[in-house]
Amino acid sequence: MEATLSVGRRPGALEAEIDVALAEFFTSRRGQIDAVGGGFREAVTILENFVLRGGKRVRPAFAWTGWLGAGGDPRGPQAAPVLRTCSALELVQACALLHDDIIDASTTRRGGPTVHIQFEQHHRDGNWNGDSAHFGEAVAILLGDLALAWADDMVRESGIGPEALVHISPVWSAMRTEVLGGQFLDITNEAHANESTDAAMKVNRYKTAAYTIERPLHLGAALAGADDDLISAYRRFGTDIGIAFQLRDDLLGVFGDPAVTGKPSGDDLRAGKRTVLFAKALQRADSVDPESAEWLRCSVGTDISDSEVDALRDVIASLGAVEDVEMQIEELVENALSVLAASTATPEAKQQLTEMAAAATRRTY
Amino acid sequence: MEATLSVGRRPGALEAEIDVALAEFFTSRRGQIDAVGGGFREAVTILENFVLRGGKRVRPAFAWTGWLGAGGDPRGPQAAPVLRTCSALELVQACALLHDDIIDASTTRRGGPTVHIQFEQHHRDGNWNGDSAHFGEAVAILLGDLALAWADDMVRESGIGPEALVHISPVWSAMRTEVLGGQFLDITNEAHANESTDAAMKVNRYKTAAYTIERPLHLGAALAGADDDLISAYRRFGTDIGIAFQLRDDLLGVFGDPAVTGKPSGDDLRAGKRTVLFAKALQRADSVDPESAEWLRCSVGTDISDSEVDALRDVIASLGAVEDVEMQIEELVENALSVLAASTATPEAKQQLTEMAAAATRRTY
Repeated sequence: MEATLSVGRRPGALEAEIDVALAEFFTSRRGQIDAVGGGFREAVTILENFVLRGGKRVRPAFAWTGWLGAGGDPRGPQAAPVLRTCSALELVQACALLHDDIIDASTTRRGGPTVHIQFEQHHRDGNWNGDSAHFGEAVAILLGDLALAWADDMVRESGIGPEALVHISPVWSAMRTEVLGGQFLDITNEAHANESTDAAMKVNRYKTAAYTIERPLHLGAALAGADDDLISAYRRFGTDIGIAFQLRDDLLGVFGDPAVTGKPSGDDLRAGKRTVLFAKALQRADSVDPESAEWLRCSVGTDISDSEVDALRDVIASLGAVEDVEMQIEELVENALSVLAASTATPEAKQQLTEMAAAATRRTY
Repeated sequence: MEATLSVGRRPGALEAEIDVALAEFFTSRRGQIDAVGGGFREAVTILENFVLRGGKRVRPAFAWTGWLGAGGDPRGPQAAPVLRTCSALELVQACALLHDDIIDASTTRRGGPTVHIQFEQHHRDGNWNGDSAHFGEAVAILLGDLALAWADDMVRESGIGPEALVHISPVWSAMRTEVLGGQFLDITNEAHANESTDAAMKVNRYKTAAYTIERPLHLGAALAGADDDLISAYRRFGTDIGIAFQLRDDLLGVFGDPAVTGKPSGDDLRAGKRTVLFAKALQRADSVDPESAEWLRCSVGTDISDSEVDALRDVIASLGAVEDVEMQIEELVENALSVLAASTATPEAKQQLTEMAAAATRRTY
């Protein structure tokens, strides 16, 4: 979505300003961090590098565009405080990623080792006492907590003023509760080997759609003091595009080119992810091809070979599950765009959000 | 400290009101939790029970007393919003405990299994997919995050008003950064087998004193709009009593009666905790009894027998480390009480804080 982030700014300027806001925030904590001493600064620097190194800034971009679309003036006095508030979403995201990477036992992220792996390595290299892996996780838990606490600090200190703080409070609150709820559902679905499409859809709704698009847009609208009609349109648009985005991601997790996704081919099959795609494939297999259903059930979540991944992929495609999901993506995008078109968002924001929706959901493999 | 919590209230009434405030907050989240569905409510209920079941409410009590001592009126309209803000400290504490128990691999807390152990057990009982211990930790990480996010929500929704929110913002922010910094120092000191008294003292300063007494008092003062002199007196009092409290706890961790402390005798020696007591014992041993020093270094942090614990205890005591620490506690309490006496806190608060200081630091073994 790189081309879509400069709404109300020169190309690339929004990302740069988000980076500046985040870097300034980290600088503002330096006094406290140095007072604690004892290696805390070095640890926080690893968090800072993680935050500044990365990601597509999707959440701040949707929040910022939501604010513009509700009449926010990118050249007005509120622009800088609003941008800081939008940027704070990246600190929530840092917590989500640090903790998720522990939960999923992921070893790489943003082109480098995950944070818990970095500290595990420090511990091992230094030949310190205790278990290196446990130490790495302990530090990553604490740094994730710090990022979550700092996200709140960054909003409170953004300068948006008491009225805007009151407006956004329930949105900010709901977003964090929803993403944590979605993460909880995700791990319990995996633990239960849950085969229901509804259950997978709920994870998409809360872990991805609400957190990534719906609530950021809602936050932007609330920052601008938007009316209920626009908020409702944003939320419907954001939910649909967010779910479509996750469905696209699910397809990429099975069929994506490793060179493009940066993840091993068929990664989601090996991890046993309970996606809508997989639930649909199972449903269809149960009714037309019980042998394949049995095979799918036995294989996912195990350490399958590349050729088995290829074979599973063929079965999932031949069952028609891919067309099912593609059709669902198309419908969701269509709905979302018609809601957006009928809304009172500014024409410029409508165009930007349409482009962002396309970038988030288009077929890329 | 049970007898000291009813400041400005009937005996026992403050604890009860804190419980009510917390229970009401959990009730206020129910709609969001139920919307997520899929077992999230049951998980959040375990968090709720953990929060409501427990602890001595030390942090809210210091914050509340700090507010009263700065002129807060327990029968005025601000009392209820202030009480809600003070109670939110218990949600920060829930996060700290859930995550600390993962970090320390603790199995019991507040008279029951720790939260990660509860979910590990659910997973095992249900014969779910994946590793039970990892699942338990994953859920406890997410519930700790939820508690931390909700602590902020509870403050923002407390009703204290925008001006008080501005006053407390830097205090709230510093407190959370400091406790996370203190926890970080604690685990790195253990990993490095750090033998410095200063390093152990920094953990006491940030993980215990700032978080448990200094900042809660500061928070209460800020809620009342107190002047810099009173804030400075509170902070000096809180730092000294907080450190003395931790030094007392260190003595209990080695010499405490298991029937009183609820922990196995000599627990800190087995865990290899890097306390001031232990650092002082090592220092003295190095200069007068190198053989004992060697033995102390080899034994702590290993699975030593009860009779070895007894022998280590005798060595630590005979080296004079206990008298050292007792003297330090005495000095800290004396300093703190003279700062408090000279402050502009109300006479009633002075008396209460003196009692709370005594309860937190007195010899009980």
